[in-house]
Amino acid sequence: MTPKRYPTARLPNPMAADPIGIGLLGYGTVGSAVDRLLSARRDDVARVLGAPVEVRRALVRDLGRPRGDAIRDGLLTDDFAAIRDDASIAVVAEVMGGVEPTRGWMLELFAAGKSVVTANKQLLARHGAELFAAAEEHGVQLRFEASVCAAIPVVKVLRESMVASEVTAVLGIVNGTTNYMLSAMAAGADYAAVLAEAQRLGYAEADPTEDVTGADAAAKIAILASIAFHTRVTIADVPHEGIDRLDSLDVAFADDLGYSVKLIGQARRVEQGVVVGVAPTLVPRAHGLSAVNGSFNAVMLRGDAIREVTLVGPGAGGDETASAVIGDLMGVLGTSGTGFPRGDGLFRDLPLVAADDVVSALYLRLDVRDEPGVLARIASVLADERVSIDSVVQRAEGGRAQLVIVTHPASEGAARRAIATIAGLDICEGDPVVLRVLADG
Amino acid sequence: MTPKRYPTARLPNPMAADPIGIGLLGYGTVGSAVDRLLSARRDDVARVLGAPVEVRRALVRDLGRPRGDAIRDGLLTDDFAAIRDDASIAVVAEVMGGVEPTRGWMLELFAAGKSVVTANKQLLARHGAELFAAAEEHGVQLRFEASVCAAIPVVKVLRESMVASEVTAVLGIVNGTTNYMLSAMAAGADYAAVLAEAQRLGYAEADPTEDVTGADAAAKIAILASIAFHTRVTIADVPHEGIDRLDSLDVAFADDLGYSVKLIGQARRVEQGVVVGVAPTLVPRAHGLSAVNGSFNAVMLRGDAIREVTLVGPGAGGDETASAVIGDLMGVLGTSGTGFPRGDGLFRDLPLVAADDVVSALYLRLDVRDEPGVLARIASVLADERVSIDSVVQRAEGGRAQLVIVTHPASEGAARRAIATIAGLDICEGDPVVLRVLADG
Repeated sequence: MTPKRYPTARLPNPMAADPIGIGLLGYGTVGSAVDRLLSARRDDVARVLGAPVEVRRALVRDLGRPRGDAIRDGLLTDDFAAIRDDASIAVVAEVMGGVEPTRGWMLELFAAGKSVVTANKQLLARHGAELFAAAEEHGVQLRFEASVCAAIPVVKVLRESMVASEVTAVLGIVNGTTNYMLSAMAAGADYAAVLAEAQRLGYAEADPTEDVTGADAAAKIAILASIAFHTRVTIADVPHEGIDRLDSLDVAFADDLGYSVKLIGQARRVEQGVVVGVAPTLVPRAHGLSAVNGSFNAVMLRGDAIREVTLVGPGAGGDETASAVIGDLMGVLGTSGTGFPRGDGLFRDLPLVAADDVVSALYLRLDVRDEPGVLARIASVLADERVSIDSVVQRAEGGRAQLVIVTHPASEGAARRAIATIAGLDICEGDPVVLRVLADG
Repeated sequence: MTPKRYPTARLPNPMAADPIGIGLLGYGTVGSAVDRLLSARRDDVARVLGAPVEVRRALVRDLGRPRGDAIRDGLLTDDFAAIRDDASIAVVAEVMGGVEPTRGWMLELFAAGKSVVTANKQLLARHGAELFAAAEEHGVQLRFEASVCAAIPVVKVLRESMVASEVTAVLGIVNGTTNYMLSAMAAGADYAAVLAEAQRLGYAEADPTEDVTGADAAAKIAILASIAFHTRVTIADVPHEGIDRLDSLDVAFADDLGYSVKLIGQARRVEQGVVVGVAPTLVPRAHGLSAVNGSFNAVMLRGDAIREVTLVGPGAGGDETASAVIGDLMGVLGTSGTGFPRGDGLFRDLPLVAADDVVSALYLRLDVRDEPGVLARIASVLADERVSIDSVVQRAEGGRAQLVIVTHPASEGAARRAIATIAGLDICEGDPVVLRVLADG
């Protein structure tokens, strides 16, 4: 099925044979991941957009810095103008961070007619109003999914899926470093030890101030509050308290009382306006946010029509952030006159594989005679098909027993052959009950 | 800030003063909710799109059926051609369900140049290939967020946010009726009793076959597998087993072994192709899907770059489904040449409200003298500010005690005044520790 040709307003026609040019401001962990992932998925991207996408230039501070030998000639530049003035670059991803000179460069890109995708929460939470007005003035797009919670698509969901829902509250765990540290403190360690360990493992930066004081979470809550309630909230508006003065004694007391302690960012629509804030907060164990542990993030959106929608996932990481940047790049290119997403994008024709051909763990319940040797006979049939046993429970009553076996993951076809053999044994009565077990997650 | 005028390809210019016309096929629970929500949010929608949106005509089977007196004149029609041929209708939401005549009507709408938004999973899971090809041929859009898990925006996230991520697995709880029933069976009730109760409460239909046999979940998994892996999967491809033959004895054994039983739909990318299926499955208690209880749905998306993103929320309901339909309507209108979402949509100017002015529950830890009357004095200061106590824990050691109090939700300003007074009492040493409690969720 050939994608239809749509009129294109400003950006290169995605159906043109020439690749669409992308520019990067920054080529660190996120920038190089954007380049690598776009290149690895080049064919799929071309099928979705109607033309391949290619990273043309990437701005770096120091051209001389060693970066491995995989970088193609002419990709890196230390001259911003080389990106701004390159007519073949349709969209720029800003993944360098910082407030200046990033802000000024972004304004120059808008003036040059280029849309920008950014991962820069501090810039947006401070200068969002100016940047959006400039993008609007020049008829280009500014997208920012990667600025909040990396691969969790909360910006798109708030801006697009819930654009006509009355969202009344956004609350979430929006900093993975502190959530990892709080999970460890809940297990008994104290703040200083947990911080040192998080730094050793790379979960916390050498200077952890932004994370542990709640400033990072406050910038994210400013952005989320703005788009949820259609009103300007800057980082200066968000009172924030971090975990740096939290005593593990209080985490232990909270646990006794049935709560987890989480660094919760909140934005609530109240009658008088908007309440925002970030603070370590006791979360009842039955609450959806209580079980979000380790470095994961979660954002809960409440509203009358949507009731409560929660998004959970990795809130940081190079590939995770790059994935959000790429989603936005595709969004900018795809909505430039084409009606994104178009068609159903089913360009593969993959075979269906029967479950028998894959590996599963199974739950098996048998009604058996309660006598010596029964388990041995059953186990040996399973062993013959190379199915090993994870756990066994048996409940006896009046000469018979319910024997429950959970297997380790094994070829499902082999396991079902073994079960058929077992069902035919004279020690079994009735059909075995077989259920799947989600063993590998 | 006046929104900029963008060139528009096919649909009415959203900046035109005239409202954009919407048609509805069906005016039942979902259709009437779409009409009501669009009308309640008319101003916001106009600000986002640049023009108001108005439901022009709604197709119903029986014009004579009593529907209350709130329905405006001329809205309802029993003549499909009145919608198809109305040039003022830009987009149609199909919320009538069924396979025929819905399929034929949808094809006629595409041929008439109208984009369609649908909530109809059975139709898509059976005739998706034909419908998408027809929409493509006529240069219009077909969106279907509401067909899977109502207000949970999994279709948009898979199609747009993860368009360039290699998704390797989709697994989820995609049927709320059976999840409600399984939660009740986990509490000890048997299948027949739980079904009767679910029917009494309106969670299960009079004929629950679609839900309890897994057919409803299979249709959703067919749709999700198709968009996740860019390959056609129809409902006929999805082997499904429901909960109708599940014995509560097995739910109890699973519980003993550390598992919840859930009706899990899965689609996995394996080396040979795609594996899909729906079956009652044992889920380890630590797994993210294990804690999804009652009528909620959850979908977990896995991939290399995104790691694991989970979306949780209500998977059914009139307003919830209508919210998804409206998100798609806005998507169709917004991407028609305009670069949706445009600007930052911050058209409100809401005041920031200090936390002191709202109601919070607080956790309070005091280092106090371990002597009679201490708790009484502290409680009376709290009572003077009308702050009541939810729970108290005290741990004594060497003449002093750690006294922990969790309050009921109260004016945070009043509570903080009380705490300041308490801190000044001669029985207290050091500063009290004060943390927030997520009391109202």
